[in-house]
Amino acid sequence: MEAEMRSQFPDGHRIPRFAGIATFCRLPHTRDLQDVDVAVVGVPFDGGASYRPGARYGPRKIREVSALLREYNPAQDVEPFHWLRIVDYGDTAVNPASIEETHALIEADLDPVVRAGAFPMCLGGDHSVSLPLLRAVARRYGPLALVQFDAHPDTWNVHFGRRYTHATPFRRAVEEGVVDARRSIQVGIRGPLPHATDLEDARALGFAVVSADDVARLGITETLHQVHERASGPVYLTLDIDAVDPAYAPGTGTPEVGGFTSREMLALVRGLAGLELVAADVVEVSPPYDHGDITSILAANLAYEVICLVARRRRSVSASRSANEEQRP
Amino acid sequence: MEAEMRSQFPDGHRIPRFAGIATFCRLPHTRDLQDVDVAVVGVPFDGGASYRPGARYGPRKIREVSALLREYNPAQDVEPFHWLRIVDYGDTAVNPASIEETHALIEADLDPVVRAGAFPMCLGGDHSVSLPLLRAVARRYGPLALVQFDAHPDTWNVHFGRRYTHATPFRRAVEEGVVDARRSIQVGIRGPLPHATDLEDARALGFAVVSADDVARLGITETLHQVHERASGPVYLTLDIDAVDPAYAPGTGTPEVGGFTSREMLALVRGLAGLELVAADVVEVSPPYDHGDITSILAANLAYEVICLVARRRRSVSASRSANEEQRP
Amino acid sequence: MEAEMRSQFPDGHRIPRFAGIATFCRLPHTRDLQDVDVAVVGVPFDGGASYRPGARYGPRKIREVSALLREYNPAQDVEPFHWLRIVDYGDTAVNPASIEETHALIEADLDPVVRAGAFPMCLGGDHSVSLPLLRAVARRYGPLALVQFDAHPDTWNVHFGRRYTHATPFRRAVEEGVVDARRSIQVGIRGPLPHATDLEDARALGFAVVSADDVARLGITETLHQVHERASGPVYLTLDIDAVDPAYAPGTGTPEVGGFTSREMLALVRGLAGLELVAADVVEVSPPYDHGDITSILAANLAYEVICLVARRRRSVSASRSANEEQRP
Amino acid sequence: MEAEMRSQFPDGHRIPRFAGIATFCRLPHTRDLQDVDVAVVGVPFDGGASYRPGARYGPRKIREVSALLREYNPAQDVEPFHWLRIVDYGDTAVNPASIEETHALIEADLDPVVRAGAFPMCLGGDHSVSLPLLRAVARRYGPLALVQFDAHPDTWNVHFGRRYTHATPFRRAVEEGVVDARRSIQVGIRGPLPHATDLEDARALGFAVVSADDVARLGITETLHQVHERASGPVYLTLDIDAVDPAYAPGTGTPEVGGFTSREMLALVRGLAGLELVAADVVEVSPPYDHGDITSILAANLAYEVICLVARRRRSVSASRSANEEQRP
Amino acid sequence: MEAEMRSQFPDGHRIPRFAGIATFCRLPHTRDLQDVDVAVVGVPFDGGASYRPGARYGPRKIREVSALLREYNPAQDVEPFHWLRIVDYGDTAVNPASIEETHALIEADLDPVVRAGAFPMCLGGDHSVSLPLLRAVARRYGPLALVQFDAHPDTWNVHFGRRYTHATPFRRAVEEGVVDARRSIQVGIRGPLPHATDLEDARALGFAVVSADDVARLGITETLHQVHERASGPVYLTLDIDAVDPAYAPGTGTPEVGGFTSREMLALVRGLAGLELVAADVVEVSPPYDHGDITSILAANLAYEVICLVARRRRSVSASRSANEEQRP
Amino acid sequence: MEAEMRSQFPDGHRIPRFAGIATFCRLPHTRDLQDVDVAVVGVPFDGGASYRPGARYGPRKIREVSALLREYNPAQDVEPFHWLRIVDYGDTAVNPASIEETHALIEADLDPVVRAGAFPMCLGGDHSVSLPLLRAVARRYGPLALVQFDAHPDTWNVHFGRRYTHATPFRRAVEEGVVDARRSIQVGIRGPLPHATDLEDARALGFAVVSADDVARLGITETLHQVHERASGPVYLTLDIDAVDPAYAPGTGTPEVGGFTSREMLALVRGLAGLELVAADVVEVSPPYDHGDITSILAANLAYEVICLVARRRRSVSASRSANEEQRP
Repeated sequence: MEAEMRSQFPDGHRIPRFAGIATFCRLPHTRDLQDVDVAVVGVPFDGGASYRPGARYGPRKIREVSALLREYNPAQDVEPFHWLRIVDYGDTAVNPASIEETHALIEADLDPVVRAGAFPMCLGGDHSVSLPLLRAVARRYGPLALVQFDAHPDTWNVHFGRRYTHATPFRRAVEEGVVDARRSIQVGIRGPLPHATDLEDARALGFAVVSADDVARLGITETLHQVHERASGPVYLTLDIDAVDPAYAPGTGTPEVGGFTSREMLALVRGLAGLELVAADVVEVSPPYDHGDITSILAANLAYEVICLVARRRRSVSASRSANEEQRP
Repeated sequence: MEAEMRSQFPDGHRIPRFAGIATFCRLPHTRDLQDVDVAVVGVPFDGGASYRPGARYGPRKIREVSALLREYNPAQDVEPFHWLRIVDYGDTAVNPASIEETHALIEADLDPVVRAGAFPMCLGGDHSVSLPLLRAVARRYGPLALVQFDAHPDTWNVHFGRRYTHATPFRRAVEEGVVDARRSIQVGIRGPLPHATDLEDARALGFAVVSADDVARLGITETLHQVHERASGPVYLTLDIDAVDPAYAPGTGTPEVGGFTSREMLALVRGLAGLELVAADVVEVSPPYDHGDITSILAANLAYEVICLVARRRRSVSASRSANEEQRP
Repeated sequence: MEAEMRSQFPDGHRIPRFAGIATFCRLPHTRDLQDVDVAVVGVPFDGGASYRPGARYGPRKIREVSALLREYNPAQDVEPFHWLRIVDYGDTAVNPASIEETHALIEADLDPVVRAGAFPMCLGGDHSVSLPLLRAVARRYGPLALVQFDAHPDTWNVHFGRRYTHATPFRRAVEEGVVDARRSIQVGIRGPLPHATDLEDARALGFAVVSADDVARLGITETLHQVHERASGPVYLTLDIDAVDPAYAPGTGTPEVGGFTSREMLALVRGLAGLELVAADVVEVSPPYDHGDITSILAANLAYEVICLVARRRRSVSASRSANEEQRP
Repeated sequence: MEAEMRSQFPDGHRIPRFAGIATFCRLPHTRDLQDVDVAVVGVPFDGGASYRPGARYGPRKIREVSALLREYNPAQDVEPFHWLRIVDYGDTAVNPASIEETHALIEADLDPVVRAGAFPMCLGGDHSVSLPLLRAVARRYGPLALVQFDAHPDTWNVHFGRRYTHATPFRRAVEEGVVDARRSIQVGIRGPLPHATDLEDARALGFAVVSADDVARLGITETLHQVHERASGPVYLTLDIDAVDPAYAPGTGTPEVGGFTSREMLALVRGLAGLELVAADVVEVSPPYDHGDITSILAANLAYEVICLVARRRRSVSASRSANEEQRP
Repeated sequence: MEAEMRSQFPDGHRIPRFAGIATFCRLPHTRDLQDVDVAVVGVPFDGGASYRPGARYGPRKIREVSALLREYNPAQDVEPFHWLRIVDYGDTAVNPASIEETHALIEADLDPVVRAGAFPMCLGGDHSVSLPLLRAVARRYGPLALVQFDAHPDTWNVHFGRRYTHATPFRRAVEEGVVDARRSIQVGIRGPLPHATDLEDARALGFAVVSADDVARLGITETLHQVHERASGPVYLTLDIDAVDPAYAPGTGTPEVGGFTSREMLALVRGLAGLELVAADVVEVSPPYDHGDITSILAANLAYEVICLVARRRRSVSASRSANEEQRP
Repeated sequence: MEAEMRSQFPDGHRIPRFAGIATFCRLPHTRDLQDVDVAVVGVPFDGGASYRPGARYGPRKIREVSALLREYNPAQDVEPFHWLRIVDYGDTAVNPASIEETHALIEADLDPVVRAGAFPMCLGGDHSVSLPLLRAVARRYGPLALVQFDAHPDTWNVHFGRRYTHATPFRRAVEEGVVDARRSIQVGIRGPLPHATDLEDARALGFAVVSADDVARLGITETLHQVHERASGPVYLTLDIDAVDPAYAPGTGTPEVGGFTSREMLALVRGLAGLELVAADVVEVSPPYDHGDITSILAANLAYEVICLVARRRRSVSASRSANEEQRP
């Protein structure tokens, strides 16, 4: 059966990576969730963006460049398409003219994925989409630990007099009980803030906040240690591409200088191994401001690394099961 | 006093056009409407867009490239800065997260301009912004004749289940009585439509519809004749940049091939001389999709041509007044 | 059943055009040819290109921007998705390292489409791909009349010492008997040529050649008259996007100044109504050299116009069949 | 000997056009003027530009894309490389920090070309470079007729308080006696002007001025008639790429909407056959603002068309000489 | 009064950052220097550039993207708009056709700013503009310590035979006595040099020179130590954006590989706290070569960090004054 | 004689770097190999590329931007144009339609360079071109040690069923005996791989493989130590620009995130001093995907650093020869 799984992934040695319908990794596009381990789900909405728009085109572009990804990940020493059945679920419905309606549509569309037990690997969209995604995931797993890589805390109360924007999702999530802030951590925060108290506000909500300067001082290993200390239980990973420096990720809505390098960002994601990841998103990729597709390529790789984390978890479960079976008389 | 007027316009022979704060034509930016003839007003909103966003940056970019415009327009043989006192009024307030609230903000911000008797030369923004602009203008002038250059009729009833989007403003305007469809005309409509009845629907609302193919067949002169036949009384001119072909205006939200050339578009606008223009907008300029700023440069020129129409009207009023004065004993 | 057909096309009023998997017009992607009238087929190969590469990305980009197309085409007064069952067949196999092997793969992949009686609407790729496409089509329909819109005759004998490049397909096609040059015509030829005899060589092969200058002199109507005079029997339409001027189609491999406008190109394609079209391709779209996607958008529209020609033919067959049925006693 | 001439032009069938050192048409680069008929000369200076810079990169880019040009020009029915020995002379010296010194350097560097009897086909650079070029050419041929295609008259007296800028060359040229304004004509003038009298000033200097609107009204044929009426004796052709519309030539310093199409521009240049052309320039190509290289490609083609005019002149001289020789007893 | 200060800065929660006239941080544009602490001054001149032009558009673009900056800087723990009254002074006059005249214009325009006691935060422009800025500043403060972050020493004697270019300002400044080289330091120098003695020449003038390789070896902290050792008395900070690597700052005139990361550059600027900064410039931002505006965004942030240094100085003065006042009996 | 050498390099203080024919460093273009120490050779071929094409334009663009390089390299403390006679040899012949024929053409064109004893500094082109280059070099020097900086091992056996692509050159080279794998090393390998055994396969061929993660762990110094341990005897250096991170080198065919910074890449190349370098290439630069030319500028600098390594070797030979001569009685 594993051979069959694998065969779903087109062989780049035979069919060129630039060919074929642009699904994620050129995997099958289906709404059939039978036996699906990971569902890649696009959320093409940027109606919550306050500066540069364009994240509505994130899912399409990330899918397109994901063709570069391949079968084996040496950095994590795992073959994700071997261990997991992965499909491209397509996009959730959205309404570009209404953020509230869009949130309802997203939550409704993600619900069957979560209920089917598939891991949702979501591709944004602006950061406002994380809220309905969290709602759908929490319905199954209860209050979630949030691991957030981001330049901005996104925990304001209102923005433009509205409670639902790309700057407010995680305050709402805590208020609604879908995120447990005491098990949650924000990493990479930096840049000028509207209020001197913004970071304190995030901490008052319960979040641990590790600024980009903190990471520079602590190093990647210690930063990951703090993440692991914090993020117990079911974890939702949200990865705002602006955690990365504009040199590495120019195509984003509110770029902040002084961010992570790609190497650091990769190490941070790979270092999440061991957490109980139940869902993830990569957001704020805005292709109209990208060049050479480098932002989208990085985003596709980060989504791939997350999937590899899921694959390793599956492998280790499988290994311990085999061990148990062998021990049986 | 005219000399003083003129002095407000920086001399491109002395101060280079690339220098200085990027107001429209580098004119003074003020909210003081005393003695203002024309107020250039930005409306930076693209929350009504259904395909490519980015029109929120239209006002800024059009202002920037408007530096190329100069004192005398030989095509209309008029010096607009001589005849008119023109200011850059800045932008209306907008709320990127709510189209309804944005509409209220736009209407409120335009209201003092209209009441002061200034001609509002508005720079969008997506086409949804025309509705609140029309409302504010109609409050002073009553139901308006609409002259619309556009690839799309924008007269759908709902879009994404919403009544207020960039595809519905003119149905709403007719329903609200701010536009008198029988005195109105749409010019340049083309491209595939969602329903076979879309053009009939626009006509059923009362609009005259002259498609791009009609214009190609009739010629510019006859097209203008039909516009003049139709547009009696106070006229609101709305100019969607996608009336022009994507070769001339790539930076727009929903490009349609087969549009006007810049020469045709200029002739159509210049040919409006004689109409009783009371307000105008140029919309759907999306700088992230532009290159070499050619779309913005065209939009700036079109706004300039409209202002020249206003200047000619002023000049002829002034001339007849002088003539009258001379005749007095 | 027609209602069902129609339902396959996602409603842009409900699901935004920027959402979903980027198939052609967001139609279903399938290899199942049962009851299929039109199969959109990508041919992502640019190994025959002699100047700018990049046409390998043509199919992907044309699919992406085809989301802008809509249900009803007023220019041809037809609803193509009503009359035809259309699918996105995906891409043919190609081998970027071998033009000969690629030709074999293309022909093999198109063969079932042609045999199933579906109209292949092919998206290139460079112009070398037309040869294997012609071979597959001719196997069913016999020697084909070729209607070619192009800046270049593409009838050289060898290029770089090779017989199979993007400059030689139509000489090969005549030699192989898959094109009947006496029923064929090339329209739009222009620009400097390597040899003074190049056009004579094309004519000596049997082609009628109407240069861009000829079209400017004759006008569109008379040009179309010559096309209709010539192209009897089953017709293969090949549309090299460089027939259009670089202002309208910058994203192409060997741009030639002085080409058609989009309006002219649309009129030429729409004017083919009445021909017995059996297959078509749009080629030489090179996205890396495009901007604002204007070349791809034009290419998508031209493919759509071709499909509308097929739909009109289907409609008229259907109408005469109905008429016959009514006449039966 | 003609075979030898021809052999200097690399065969694009054997060596790809994207290969080799980027000289004009990949012709030999040499300062040896022995037997040279046409010397292509770059003038990489943009220190006279008042808006967008970048024309300093014009010569390099035009050379690069000129690789697309080929041996035979069907529009003029001539093989220029057969009739003329053409070399790439390289660039004149320039000093980016001083326009006056640059003018001296340009004039000095062009002088040997003119004295050797070669036709200088110059590639700018901004329009200020035409003045020293004219000086060098006039030294041999006396006061020149100027045929100028341009959006701007470039006949101001001072700009930024300076007498030598890209807005003043032709007033200076008349004052210095290197241009005979009564034999000269400006074609394509359009766009807003700083002063209502600017066109009158140009006319007062003696120039005939045919605006873009005039050309639209007169047509190409009549416009050319006026050019021929005017431009007797030795003619210097100066071709500012902004004569063309920004859709066709976005990469320029001061774009003006409403310009020529590429087809019109080509017809205007080809229509100069019969004039006694002694030198020419193509100026104001600014690659940083171009896209898809379309402006440079057009400029390269226009230079090529000029060279073909020279070739036809040579051919007809050669023909009449042969005829004379035959008649001799 | 502080509340009033603050109110001048538009609240990005209410008015979107993409809206309004593009002044620096959307602050008021005025020439009134009453009570002004910091005047942001554009210097739009690139006539001294020897490779890529375009820095004339630097001020405009930096202003535009500065909208992203916000009220509180956590990295320096200061709210600059609280402590300082900041205005956008607009641009100095320049003459694109004359570097000497431009220098006089710049000096004259900066003079009132310096005399009013405002801190000039200048935005270039190419590096030649630092010389007249230094002159104006030194007139008040005497010979200045120069802290220069740059890839190039800019201390040549002549360039193109001219003494005033973007490669010579700091030799001139030392010669004229406006810079005291013994209190000055150049940091980040790297890349190939025209002469083996160039760095020795800079040192012979009196400058300390810390190459990019030196910084890599010493680390940021030790580098800053050397800067502080050196830069006593009134300090002029000049920040050439090419000190940063082209990956982070592609939009510049003479890019040199191997430069600082954004994180390093930010640390170097923030580490200047304690110096007696009296004026600063950020230069060599060339928007035509930028993408995604990342160079301009970095430049805007660096200017903001400099302003925060000024704010901290003000705060500590204010604090000690309060302390003194409290101690009074 | 050295003065003469030096004079060949145009002085950027007198002739601007943007001027002149775009040869490498504006050096003479010649096929005369008499007394030539280094021949810069372009190899404009991308027919082996499996994802993004465009490397055919690499040589042209690298030449163009190499104008920024200057006479003295402080990082290596050497003046390469003083010690070496360097020419631009132009491009090898290629056939874009056949990889096998291209390989033969490349080998044949490089052969005289190698036989003349010149150091070939080759500019690709995709990585497939290294194989024929190695063949030509090995003919003189025997089996070569390969030092390869690259994201990919390029040691697959077949790709698309072909033995000659940009993914297979080094397996072929080992099989043919032109590379001695036991003296060879690959540095910088990273990213997902098609097969879990790909790196083992490279090692099984004999290569040492140092992944990007290994380098991050070991540091640059230790990495270089391993390179020096390994690469004895004549060394061929191949530098795939994708060894560098996409932030620094976006313009490449198969970008992989997590690569070297420019500073690291420069240190790695400079650290090769002491090896017996006999030839080198820099490949996979794809200008259509670049921006601000940053990839090409980095590639030009890397080629320059390699040439400086050759110059240092020459200098030390010269020094020891002088020492020997002095010792003679």
